[in-house]
Amino acid sequence: MRVGLYQSHPIFGEVDANVERAMEDLWEIKADLLVLPELFATGYQFISKEEVRKLAEEIPNGKTCQAMLELAKRKNVHIVFGLAEREKENLYNAAAVVGPAGLVGRYRKTHLFFDEKTFFDPGDTGFQVFDLGFATVGVMICFDWWFPESARVLALLGADIICHPANLVLPDCQEAMKTRSLENGVFTITANRVGTEARGGKEPLTYTGESQIVGPRGRVIIRAGKGETGVFTADIDPEEARDKSITARNHRFQDRRPEYYGPLTNPEINKSP
Amino acid sequence: MRVGLYQSHPIFGEVDANVERAMEDLWEIKADLLVLPELFATGYQFISKEEVRKLAEEIPNGKTCQAMLELAKRKNVHIVFGLAEREKENLYNAAAVVGPAGLVGRYRKTHLFFDEKTFFDPGDTGFQVFDLGFATVGVMICFDWWFPESARVLALLGADIICHPANLVLPDCQEAMKTRSLENGVFTITANRVGTEARGGKEPLTYTGESQIVGPRGRVIIRAGKGETGVFTADIDPEEARDKSITARNHRFQDRRPEYYGPLTNPEINKSP
Repeated sequence: MRVGLYQSHPIFGEVDANVERAMEDLWEIKADLLVLPELFATGYQFISKEEVRKLAEEIPNGKTCQAMLELAKRKNVHIVFGLAEREKENLYNAAAVVGPAGLVGRYRKTHLFFDEKTFFDPGDTGFQVFDLGFATVGVMICFDWWFPESARVLALLGADIICHPANLVLPDCQEAMKTRSLENGVFTITANRVGTEARGGKEPLTYTGESQIVGPRGRVIIRAGKGETGVFTADIDPEEARDKSITARNHRFQDRRPEYYGPLTNPEINKSP
Repeated sequence: MRVGLYQSHPIFGEVDANVERAMEDLWEIKADLLVLPELFATGYQFISKEEVRKLAEEIPNGKTCQAMLELAKRKNVHIVFGLAEREKENLYNAAAVVGPAGLVGRYRKTHLFFDEKTFFDPGDTGFQVFDLGFATVGVMICFDWWFPESARVLALLGADIICHPANLVLPDCQEAMKTRSLENGVFTITANRVGTEARGGKEPLTYTGESQIVGPRGRVIIRAGKGETGVFTADIDPEEARDKSITARNHRFQDRRPEYYGPLTNPEINKSP
Protein backbone atom coordinates (compact mmCIF):
# COMPACT_ATOMS: atom_id res chain seq x y z
CA MET A 1 0.00 0.00 0.00
CA ARG A 2 1.02 3.59 -0.50
CA VAL A 3 0.90 6.10 2.32
CA GLY A 4 1.55 9.81 2.16
CA LEU A 5 1.82 12.85 4.34
CA TYR A 6 1.19 16.49 3.54
CA GLN A 7 3.62 19.02 4.96
CA SER A 8 1.80 22.34 4.65
CA HIS A 9 2.09 26.04 5.40
CA PRO A 10 -1.42 27.28 6.21
CA ILE A 11 -2.33 30.94 6.56
CA PHE A 12 -3.98 31.56 9.92
CA GLY A 13 -7.76 31.86 9.72
CA GLU A 14 -7.95 31.45 5.94
CA VAL A 15 -9.88 28.21 6.04
CA ASP A 16 -11.18 28.37 2.46
CA ALA A 17 -7.75 29.08 1.00
CA ASN A 18 -6.00 26.48 3.16
CA VAL A 19 -8.48 23.75 2.27
CA GLU A 20 -8.45 24.69 -1.41
CA ARG A 21 -4.65 24.57 -1.46
CA ALA A 22 -4.71 21.14 0.20
CA MET A 23 -7.26 19.86 -2.32
CA GLU A 24 -5.03 21.01 -5.18
CA ASP A 25 -1.84 19.62 -3.66
CA LEU A 26 -3.43 16.26 -2.89
CA TRP A 27 -5.50 15.86 -6.03
CA GLU A 28 -2.77 14.32 -8.18
CA ILE A 29 -1.49 11.96 -5.49
CA LYS A 30 -2.26 8.28 -5.72
CA ALA A 31 -2.25 6.75 -2.26
CA ASP A 32 -4.30 4.53 0.04
CA LEU A 33 -3.83 6.68 3.12
CA LEU A 34 -2.96 10.36 3.52
CA VAL A 35 -2.14 12.15 6.76
CA LEU A 36 -2.46 15.94 7.11
CA PRO A 37 -1.20 18.18 9.93
CA GLU A 38 -3.00 19.18 13.10
CA LEU A 39 -5.46 22.09 12.58
CA PHE A 40 -4.42 22.19 8.94
CA ALA A 41 -7.37 24.31 7.81
CA THR A 42 -7.36 27.01 10.49
CA GLY A 43 -3.74 27.42 11.51
CA TYR A 44 -2.61 26.94 15.08
CA GLN A 45 -2.02 30.09 17.08
CA PHE A 46 -5.44 31.10 18.32
CA ILE A 47 -5.60 34.12 20.62
CA SER A 48 -9.08 33.68 22.09
CA LYS A 49 -11.66 31.01 22.65
CA GLU A 50 -14.14 33.08 20.64
CA GLU A 51 -11.80 32.85 17.68
CA VAL A 52 -11.70 29.07 18.01
CA ARG A 53 -15.48 28.93 18.25
CA LYS A 54 -15.81 30.95 15.06
CA LEU A 55 -13.42 28.76 13.08
CA ALA A 56 -14.29 25.36 14.56
CA GLU A 57 -16.50 23.02 12.56
CA GLU A 58 -18.74 20.07 13.16
CA ILE A 59 -17.69 16.60 12.08
CA PRO A 60 -18.76 15.66 9.43
CA ASN A 61 -20.94 18.64 8.47
CA GLY A 62 -18.31 21.36 8.47
CA LYS A 63 -16.78 22.51 5.21
CA THR A 64 -13.30 21.16 5.92
CA CYS A 65 -14.62 17.71 6.64
CA GLN A 66 -16.94 17.87 3.63
CA ALA A 67 -14.02 18.77 1.37
CA MET A 68 -11.96 15.88 2.71
CA LEU A 69 -14.91 13.53 2.29
CA GLU A 70 -15.20 14.60 -1.34
CA LEU A 71 -11.50 14.09 -1.91
CA ALA A 72 -11.63 10.68 -0.23
CA LYS A 73 -14.54 9.59 -2.40
CA ARG A 74 -13.25 10.99 -5.69
CA LYS A 75 -9.70 9.68 -5.22
CA ASN A 76 -10.58 6.47 -3.39
CA VAL A 77 -8.30 7.29 -0.48
CA HIS A 78 -8.49 7.37 3.32
CA ILE A 79 -7.50 10.68 4.90
CA VAL A 80 -6.61 11.56 8.48
CA PHE A 81 -6.58 15.30 9.15
CA GLY A 82 -6.52 17.61 12.12
CA LEU A 83 -9.22 20.20 12.70
CA ALA A 84 -10.84 22.41 15.32
CA GLU A 85 -14.04 20.54 16.13
CA ARG A 86 -17.16 22.11 17.59
CA GLU A 87 -19.79 19.91 19.22
CA LYS A 88 -22.51 21.93 20.92
CA GLU A 89 -20.66 24.10 23.46
CA ASN A 90 -17.48 22.04 23.35
CA LEU A 91 -14.37 22.71 21.29
CA TYR A 92 -11.79 20.02 20.56
CA ASN A 93 -8.40 19.80 18.95
CA ALA A 94 -9.48 16.82 16.90
CA ALA A 95 -8.68 14.62 13.96
CA ALA A 96 -11.12 12.95 11.62
CA VAL A 97 -10.66 9.75 9.63
CA VAL A 98 -12.58 9.73 6.35
CA GLY A 99 -12.70 7.27 3.47
CA PRO A 100 -14.47 6.63 0.19
CA ALA A 101 -17.55 5.40 2.09
CA GLY A 102 -17.74 8.38 4.41
CA LEU A 103 -16.72 9.27 7.95
CA VAL A 104 -14.80 6.47 9.68
CA GLY A 105 -14.14 8.04 13.06
CA ARG A 106 -12.79 10.89 15.08
CA TYR A 107 -10.16 11.40 17.77
CA ARG A 108 -9.98 14.28 20.26
CA LYS A 109 -6.51 15.17 21.56
CA THR A 110 -5.87 13.62 24.95
CA HIS A 111 -2.83 15.67 26.03
CA LEU A 112 -3.30 19.37 25.31
CA PHE A 113 -0.21 21.54 24.81
CA PHE A 114 0.30 24.94 26.44
CA ASP A 115 -2.41 27.48 25.49
CA GLU A 116 -4.52 24.76 23.93
CA LYS A 117 -5.66 24.32 27.53
CA THR A 118 -7.33 27.72 27.25
CA PHE A 119 -8.87 27.17 23.85
CA PHE A 120 -9.91 23.51 23.76
CA ASP A 121 -11.66 20.98 25.96
CA PRO A 122 -9.59 17.94 26.89
CA GLY A 123 -10.26 15.08 24.50
CA ASP A 124 -12.88 12.59 25.65
CA THR A 125 -12.58 9.87 23.02
CA GLY A 126 -9.51 8.12 24.39
CA PHE A 127 -7.30 6.20 21.98
CA GLN A 128 -9.06 4.16 19.34
CA VAL A 129 -8.14 2.23 16.25
CA PHE A 130 -9.97 1.97 12.95
CA ASP A 131 -9.89 -1.04 10.63
CA LEU A 132 -9.63 0.33 7.10
CA GLY A 133 -9.41 -3.10 5.49
CA PHE A 134 -5.90 -2.79 4.13
CA ALA A 135 -4.59 -1.74 7.56
CA THR A 136 -5.68 -0.83 11.08
CA VAL A 137 -4.85 2.76 11.94
CA GLY A 138 -4.70 4.64 15.22
CA VAL A 139 -4.61 8.39 15.64
CA MET A 140 -2.76 10.60 18.09
CA ILE A 141 -2.17 14.35 17.78
CA CYS A 142 1.10 16.23 18.17
CA PHE A 143 2.01 16.52 21.90
CA ASP A 144 0.50 13.09 22.59
CA TRP A 145 3.91 11.84 21.41
CA TRP A 146 5.57 12.90 24.66
CA PHE A 147 3.49 10.39 26.64
CA PRO A 148 4.59 6.84 25.84
CA GLU A 149 1.13 5.66 26.84
CA SER A 150 -0.44 7.15 23.69
CA ALA A 151 1.35 5.08 21.06
CA ARG A 152 1.51 2.07 23.37
CA VAL A 153 -2.25 1.96 23.85
CA LEU A 154 -2.84 2.33 20.11
CA ALA A 155 -0.41 -0.47 19.33
CA LEU A 156 -1.91 -2.76 21.96
CA LEU A 157 -5.34 -2.12 20.46
CA GLY A 158 -4.01 -3.31 17.11
CA ALA A 159 -2.83 -0.29 15.18
CA ASP A 160 -0.48 -1.14 12.30
CA ILE A 161 -0.02 2.52 11.48
CA ILE A 162 -0.17 5.45 13.89
CA CYS A 163 -1.32 8.57 12.07
CA HIS A 164 0.10 11.61 13.84
CA PRO A 165 -1.10 15.03 12.71
CA ALA A 166 1.18 17.61 14.31
CA ASN A 167 2.12 21.27 14.59
CA LEU A 168 5.49 20.76 16.25
CA VAL A 169 7.41 23.53 17.97
CA LEU A 170 9.57 21.42 20.34
CA PRO A 171 12.73 19.86 18.88
CA ASP A 172 12.63 16.25 20.09
CA CYS A 173 9.58 14.65 18.53
CA GLN A 174 11.01 13.37 15.28
CA GLU A 175 13.77 11.39 17.00
CA ALA A 176 11.45 10.19 19.76
CA MET A 177 9.00 8.84 17.18
CA LYS A 178 11.71 6.40 16.08
CA THR A 179 11.51 4.96 19.59
CA ARG A 180 7.70 4.96 19.46
CA SER A 181 7.82 2.92 16.23
CA LEU A 182 10.50 0.57 17.49
CA GLU A 183 9.09 -0.18 20.92
CA ASN A 184 5.63 -0.87 19.50
CA GLY A 185 6.54 -2.34 16.13
CA VAL A 186 4.31 0.05 14.20
CA PHE A 187 4.57 2.47 11.31
CA THR A 188 4.24 6.09 12.42
CA ILE A 189 3.32 8.92 10.07
CA THR A 190 3.97 12.35 11.54
CA ALA A 191 2.52 15.11 9.33
CA ASN A 192 3.91 18.42 10.52
CA ARG A 193 3.64 21.97 9.17
CA VAL A 194 6.19 24.69 8.48
CA GLY A 195 6.24 28.48 8.86
CA THR A 196 5.99 30.93 11.73
CA GLU A 197 2.92 32.38 13.40
CA ALA A 198 3.02 35.49 15.61
CA ARG A 199 -0.45 36.66 16.48
CA GLY A 200 -1.90 39.14 18.95
CA GLY A 201 1.41 39.92 20.61
CA LYS A 202 1.99 36.30 21.56
CA GLU A 203 5.41 34.73 21.35
CA PRO A 204 6.07 33.63 17.77
CA LEU A 205 5.77 29.93 17.07
CA THR A 206 8.01 28.35 14.46
CA TYR A 207 6.99 24.92 13.23
CA THR A 208 9.76 22.43 12.63
CA GLY A 209 8.78 20.59 9.44
CA GLU A 210 10.67 17.32 9.01
CA SER A 211 7.46 15.33 8.71
CA GLN A 212 8.32 11.66 8.51
CA ILE A 213 7.30 8.08 8.05
CA VAL A 214 9.05 5.59 10.33
CA GLY A 215 8.97 1.81 9.98
CA PRO A 216 8.26 -0.74 12.71
CA ARG A 217 11.98 -1.33 13.29
CA GLY A 218 12.48 2.35 14.10
CA ARG A 219 14.07 3.35 10.79
CA VAL A 220 13.08 6.56 9.00
CA ILE A 221 11.57 5.66 5.62
CA ILE A 222 11.07 9.23 4.45
CA ARG A 223 11.62 12.61 6.08
CA ALA A 224 10.71 15.98 4.58
CA GLY A 225 12.95 19.01 4.92
CA LYS A 226 12.63 21.63 7.64
CA GLY A 227 11.03 24.24 5.41
CA GLU A 228 9.61 22.57 2.33
CA THR A 229 5.95 21.94 1.65
CA GLY A 230 4.32 19.19 -0.36
CA VAL A 231 3.18 15.59 -0.33
CA PHE A 232 5.64 12.82 0.50
CA THR A 233 4.74 9.20 -0.14
CA ALA A 234 6.17 5.76 0.51
CA ASP A 235 5.14 2.21 -0.26
CA ILE A 236 4.82 0.16 2.88
CA ASP A 237 3.61 -3.30 3.85
CA PRO A 238 1.41 -3.10 6.95
CA GLU A 239 2.04 -6.82 7.48
CA GLU A 240 5.47 -5.81 8.82
CA ALA A 241 3.73 -4.20 11.77
CA ARG A 242 1.92 -7.43 12.64
CA ASP A 243 5.13 -9.32 13.32
CA LYS A 244 5.84 -8.16 16.87
CA SER A 245 8.90 -10.33 17.35
CA ILE A 246 12.14 -8.73 18.49
CA THR A 247 14.23 -11.91 18.45
CA ALA A 248 13.27 -15.55 17.93
CA ARG A 249 12.49 -15.65 21.66
CA ASN A 250 11.28 -12.09 22.32
CA HIS A 251 7.99 -10.45 21.47
CA ARG A 252 6.97 -6.83 21.98
CA PHE A 253 3.63 -7.75 23.52
CA GLN A 254 3.92 -11.30 24.85
CA ASP A 255 6.99 -10.35 26.88
CA ARG A 256 5.10 -7.57 28.62
CA ARG A 257 4.36 -8.17 32.31
CA PRO A 258 1.34 -5.98 33.11
CA GLU A 259 1.25 -7.30 36.68
CA TYR A 260 4.23 -5.01 37.33
CA TYR A 261 2.84 -1.97 35.51
CA GLY A 262 0.20 -0.99 38.06
CA PRO A 263 1.39 2.59 38.64
CA LEU A 264 0.68 3.40 34.98
CA THR A 265 -3.07 3.31 35.49
CA ASN A 266 -3.19 4.38 39.13
CA PRO A 267 -4.94 7.78 39.10
CA GLU A 268 -3.44 8.74 42.47
CA ILE A 269 0.22 8.15 41.74
CA ASN A 270 2.51 11.10 41.40
CA LYS A 271 -0.05 13.79 40.92
CA SER A 272 2.06 16.13 43.06
CA PRO A 273 3.00 19.44 41.42
CA MET B 1 26.63 14.94 43.37
CA ARG B 2 28.99 12.90 41.27
CA VAL B 3 27.83 9.79 39.43
CA GLY B 4 29.91 7.33 37.48
CA LEU B 5 29.61 4.28 35.32
CA TYR B 6 32.06 1.47 34.71
CA GLN B 7 32.40 0.19 31.16
CA SER B 8 34.12 -3.16 31.54
CA HIS B 9 35.38 -6.16 29.60
CA PRO B 10 34.94 -9.20 31.84
CA ILE B 11 36.39 -12.61 31.07
CA PHE B 12 33.65 -15.23 31.11
CA GLY B 13 33.54 -17.28 34.29
CA GLU B 14 36.58 -15.61 35.91
CA VAL B 15 34.62 -14.10 38.79
CA ASP B 16 37.62 -13.50 41.05
CA ALA B 17 39.60 -11.75 38.33
CA ASN B 18 36.65 -9.70 37.11
CA VAL B 19 35.75 -8.51 40.60
CA GLU B 20 39.39 -7.77 41.46
CA ARG B 21 39.77 -5.75 38.27
CA ALA B 22 36.62 -3.79 39.09
CA MET B 23 37.84 -3.11 42.63
CA GLU B 24 41.11 -1.75 41.24
CA ASP B 25 39.48 0.34 38.54
CA LEU B 26 36.93 1.82 40.94
CA TRP B 27 39.19 2.31 43.94
CA GLU B 28 40.56 5.69 42.93
CA ILE B 29 37.20 7.11 41.84
CA LYS B 30 35.46 9.65 44.02
CA ALA B 31 31.72 9.50 43.43
CA ASP B 32 28.42 9.27 45.26
CA LEU B 33 26.92 6.65 42.97
CA LEU B 34 28.53 4.11 40.65
CA VAL B 35 26.75 1.87 38.16
CA LEU B 36 28.33 -1.34 36.83
CA PRO B 37 27.18 -3.53 33.92
CA GLU B 38 24.78 -6.44 34.00
CA LEU B 39 26.42 -9.72 35.14
CA PHE B 40 29.71 -7.86 35.45
CA ALA B 41 31.42 -10.53 37.54
CA THR B 42 30.49 -13.65 35.57
CA GLY B 43 30.22 -12.54 31.97
CA TYR B 44 27.04 -13.00 29.98
CA GLN B 45 27.00 -15.90 27.55
CA PHE B 46 26.06 -18.89 29.67
CA ILE B 47 25.60 -22.19 27.87
CA SER B 48 23.74 -24.19 30.52
CA LYS B 49 21.63 -23.63 33.56
CA GLU B 50 24.12 -25.70 35.57
CA GLU B 51 26.80 -23.20 34.65
CA VAL B 52 24.61 -20.36 35.93
CA ARG B 53 23.92 -22.26 39.14
CA LYS B 54 27.63 -22.76 39.72
CA LEU B 55 28.48 -19.08 39.19
CA ALA B 56 25.41 -17.46 40.76
CA GLU B 57 25.69 -16.01 44.26
CA GLU B 58 23.45 -15.09 47.12
CA ILE B 59 22.73 -11.47 47.94
CA PRO B 60 24.40 -10.25 50.12
CA ASN B 61 26.49 -13.26 51.16
CA GLY B 62 28.16 -14.06 47.84
CA LYS B 63 31.70 -12.87 47.21
CA THR B 64 30.80 -10.37 44.50
CA CYS B 65 28.28 -8.66 46.72
CA GLN B 66 30.69 -8.77 49.67
CA ALA B 67 33.41 -7.12 47.61
CA MET B 68 31.02 -4.37 46.49
CA LEU B 69 29.86 -3.88 50.09
CA GLU B 70 33.47 -3.44 51.15
CA LEU B 71 34.11 -0.96 48.37
CA ALA B 72 30.95 0.95 49.24
CA LYS B 73 31.94 1.17 52.90
CA ARG B 74 35.59 2.03 52.38
CA LYS B 75 34.92 4.63 49.68
CA ASN B 76 31.63 5.94 51.06
CA VAL B 77 29.80 5.33 47.79
CA HIS B 78 26.59 3.69 46.63
CA ILE B 79 27.01 1.03 43.95
CA VAL B 80 24.49 -0.60 41.63
CA PHE B 81 25.81 -3.72 39.91
CA GLY B 82 24.44 -6.63 37.95
CA LEU B 83 24.97 -10.22 39.07
CA ALA B 84 23.65 -13.74 38.70
CA GLU B 85 21.66 -14.25 41.88
CA ARG B 86 20.85 -17.60 43.46
CA GLU B 87 18.07 -17.87 46.01
CA LYS B 88 17.33 -21.45 46.98
CA GLU B 89 16.46 -23.17 43.70
CA ASN B 90 15.85 -19.96 41.80
CA LEU B 91 18.29 -18.08 39.58
CA TYR B 92 17.85 -14.43 38.66
CA ASN B 93 19.49 -11.93 36.38
CA ALA B 94 19.62 -9.37 39.17
CA ALA B 95 21.13 -6.12 40.34
CA ALA B 96 22.02 -5.16 43.90
CA VAL B 97 22.14 -1.70 45.41
CA VAL B 98 24.73 -1.36 48.17
CA GLY B 99 25.92 1.58 50.22
CA PRO B 100 28.22 2.46 53.11
CA ALA B 101 25.64 1.13 55.58
CA GLY B 102 25.14 -2.18 53.78
CA LEU B 103 22.68 -3.72 51.36
CA VAL B 104 19.98 -1.28 50.22
CA GLY B 105 17.96 -3.47 47.89
CA ARG B 106 17.81 -5.77 44.92
CA TYR B 107 16.07 -5.89 41.56
CA ARG B 108 15.41 -8.97 39.44
CA LYS B 109 15.13 -8.43 35.69
CA THR B 110 11.52 -8.22 34.58
CA HIS B 111 11.95 -8.68 30.83
CA LEU B 112 14.39 -11.49 30.01
CA PHE B 113 16.26 -11.42 26.70
CA PHE B 114 16.63 -14.41 24.39
CA ASP B 115 18.43 -17.37 26.05
CA GLU B 116 18.16 -15.73 29.45
CA LYS B 117 14.73 -17.36 29.36
CA THR B 118 16.49 -20.71 29.57
CA PHE B 119 18.95 -19.75 32.26
CA PHE B 120 17.08 -17.42 34.61
CA ASP B 121 13.73 -17.22 36.34
CA PRO B 122 11.61 -14.18 35.43
CA GLY B 123 12.16 -11.38 37.93
CA ASP B 124 9.63 -11.25 40.74
CA THR B 125 10.53 -7.97 42.44
CA GLY B 126 8.82 -5.60 40.03
CA PHE B 127 10.15 -2.08 39.71
CA GLN B 128 11.18 -0.38 42.91
CA VAL B 129 12.96 2.80 43.91
CA PHE B 130 15.44 3.36 46.72
CA ASP B 131 15.91 6.61 48.60
CA LEU B 132 19.65 7.06 49.05
CA GLY B 133 19.32 10.45 50.75
CA PHE B 134 21.04 12.51 48.07
CA ALA B 135 18.78 11.03 45.38
CA THR B 136 16.11 8.41 44.77
CA VAL B 137 17.27 5.72 42.37
CA GLY B 138 15.43 3.08 40.39
CA VAL B 139 16.96 0.07 38.71
CA MET B 140 16.21 -1.66 35.43
CA ILE B 141 18.42 -4.13 33.57
CA CYS B 142 19.40 -4.07 29.90
CA PHE B 143 16.45 -5.30 27.75
CA ASP B 144 13.96 -3.68 30.15
CA TRP B 145 14.71 -0.54 28.10
CA TRP B 146 12.65 -1.79 25.17
CA PHE B 147 9.45 -1.67 27.25
CA PRO B 148 8.47 1.93 27.98
CA GLU B 149 6.64 0.70 31.05
CA SER B 150 9.92 -0.01 32.89
CA ALA B 151 11.32 3.50 33.06
CA ARG B 152 7.84 5.01 33.30
CA VAL B 153 6.95 3.01 36.41
CA LEU B 154 10.28 3.87 38.04
CA ALA B 155 9.80 7.58 37.31
CA LEU B 156 6.22 7.55 38.60
CA LEU B 157 7.45 5.91 41.79
CA GLY B 158 9.85 8.81 42.27
CA ALA B 159 13.19 7.84 40.72
CA ASP B 160 15.48 10.79 40.03
CA ILE B 161 18.07 8.52 38.49
CA ILE B 162 17.48 5.27 36.65
CA CYS B 163 20.48 2.97 37.03
CA HIS B 164 20.65 0.67 34.03
CA PRO B 165 23.22 -2.14 34.12
CA ALA B 166 23.41 -3.60 30.62
CA ASN B 167 25.13 -6.04 28.29
CA LEU B 168 23.81 -4.62 25.05
CA VAL B 169 23.95 -6.43 21.74
CA LEU B 170 21.10 -4.64 19.90
CA PRO B 171 21.90 -1.27 18.31
CA ASP B 172 19.04 0.96 19.38
CA CYS B 173 19.23 1.28 23.14
CA GLN B 174 21.52 4.26 23.52
CA GLU B 175 19.35 6.50 21.34
CA ALA B 176 16.11 5.20 22.87
CA MET B 177 17.39 5.99 26.36
CA LYS B 178 17.39 9.67 25.37
CA THR B 179 13.63 9.31 24.90
CA ARG B 180 13.33 7.43 28.21
CA SER B 181 15.07 10.32 30.00
CA LEU B 182 13.10 13.00 28.20
CA GLU B 183 9.62 11.52 28.52
CA ASN B 184 10.12 10.86 32.24
CA GLY B 185 12.36 13.78 33.18
CA VAL B 186 14.98 11.55 34.81
CA PHE B 187 18.70 10.94 34.63
CA THR B 188 19.54 7.56 33.13
CA ILE B 189 22.89 5.83 33.61
CA THR B 190 23.43 2.95 31.21
CA ALA B 191 26.54 0.94 32.13
CA ASN B 192 27.36 -1.37 29.25
CA ARG B 193 30.29 -3.70 28.57
CA VAL B 194 32.54 -4.26 25.55
CA GLY B 195 34.12 -7.28 23.91
CA THR B 196 32.88 -10.42 22.19
CA GLU B 197 31.84 -13.75 23.69
CA ALA B 198 31.53 -16.95 21.65
CA ARG B 199 30.99 -19.94 23.85
CA GLY B 200 29.95 -23.55 23.30
CA GLY B 201 29.31 -23.14 19.58
CA LYS B 202 26.73 -20.40 20.18
CA GLU B 203 26.50 -17.38 17.94
CA PRO B 204 29.09 -14.81 19.01
CA LEU B 205 27.78 -11.84 20.97
CA THR B 206 29.47 -8.48 20.55
CA TYR B 207 28.66 -5.86 23.18
CA THR B 208 28.24 -2.34 21.96
CA GLY B 209 29.91 -0.16 24.62
CA GLU B 210 28.83 3.48 24.42
CA SER B 211 27.75 3.52 28.04
CA GLN B 212 26.16 6.84 28.80
CA ILE B 213 24.63 9.27 31.24
CA VAL B 214 21.60 11.19 29.92
CA GLY B 215 19.98 14.20 31.59
CA PRO B 216 16.28 14.75 32.25
CA ARG B 217 15.91 16.85 29.10
CA GLY B 218 17.13 13.96 26.96
CA ARG B 219 20.64 15.26 26.33
CA VAL B 220 23.68 12.98 26.54
CA ILE B 221 25.96 14.23 29.34
CA ILE B 222 28.72 11.70 28.75
CA ARG B 223 29.08 8.73 26.42
CA ALA B 224 31.97 6.26 26.40
CA GLY B 225 33.45 4.92 23.18
CA LYS B 226 32.41 1.68 21.52
CA GLY B 227 35.46 -0.26 22.61
CA GLU B 228 37.10 1.50 25.54
CA THR B 229 36.95 0.40 29.16
CA GLY B 230 37.11 2.48 32.32
CA VAL B 231 35.15 4.67 34.67
CA PHE B 232 33.31 7.73 33.36
CA THR B 233 31.94 10.31 35.76
CA ALA B 234 29.79 13.43 35.66
CA ASP B 235 28.53 15.94 38.19
CA ILE B 236 24.77 16.14 38.19
CA ASP B 237 22.06 17.83 40.23
CA PRO B 238 19.27 15.35 40.99
CA GLU B 239 17.00 18.32 41.72
CA GLU B 240 16.77 18.76 37.93
CA ALA B 241 14.85 15.48 37.79
CA ARG B 242 12.28 16.70 40.30
CA ASP B 243 11.09 19.52 38.04
CA LYS B 244 8.72 17.60 35.79
CA SER B 245 7.54 20.64 33.86
CA ILE B 246 7.73 20.60 30.07
CA THR B 247 6.38 24.11 29.53
CA ALA B 248 4.88 26.63 31.96
CA ARG B 249 1.56 24.86 31.39
CA ASN B 250 2.65 21.26 30.81
CA HIS B 251 3.85 18.67 33.28
CA ARG B 252 5.13 15.17 32.57
CA PHE B 253 2.98 13.59 35.27
CA GLN B 254 0.09 15.94 35.95
CA ASP B 255 -0.83 15.97 32.26
CA ARG B 256 -1.12 12.19 32.20
CA ARG B 257 -4.67 10.85 31.83
CA PRO B 258 -4.59 7.32 33.28
CA GLU B 259 -8.32 6.91 32.67
CA TYR B 260 -7.40 6.40 29.00
CA TYR B 261 -4.44 4.06 29.62
CA GLY B 262 -6.42 0.99 30.64
CA PRO B 263 -4.99 -1.40 28.02
CA LEU B 264 -1.52 -0.95 29.55
CA THR B 265 -2.41 -2.99 32.63
CA ASN B 266 -5.00 -5.28 31.09
CA PRO B 267 -3.46 -8.77 31.27
CA GLU B 268 -5.68 -10.05 28.47
CA ILE B 269 -4.96 -7.48 25.82
CA ASN B 270 -2.93 -8.46 22.82
CA LYS B 271 -1.44 -11.65 24.13
CA SER B 272 -1.87 -13.21 20.68
CA PRO B 273 1.32 -14.64 19.14
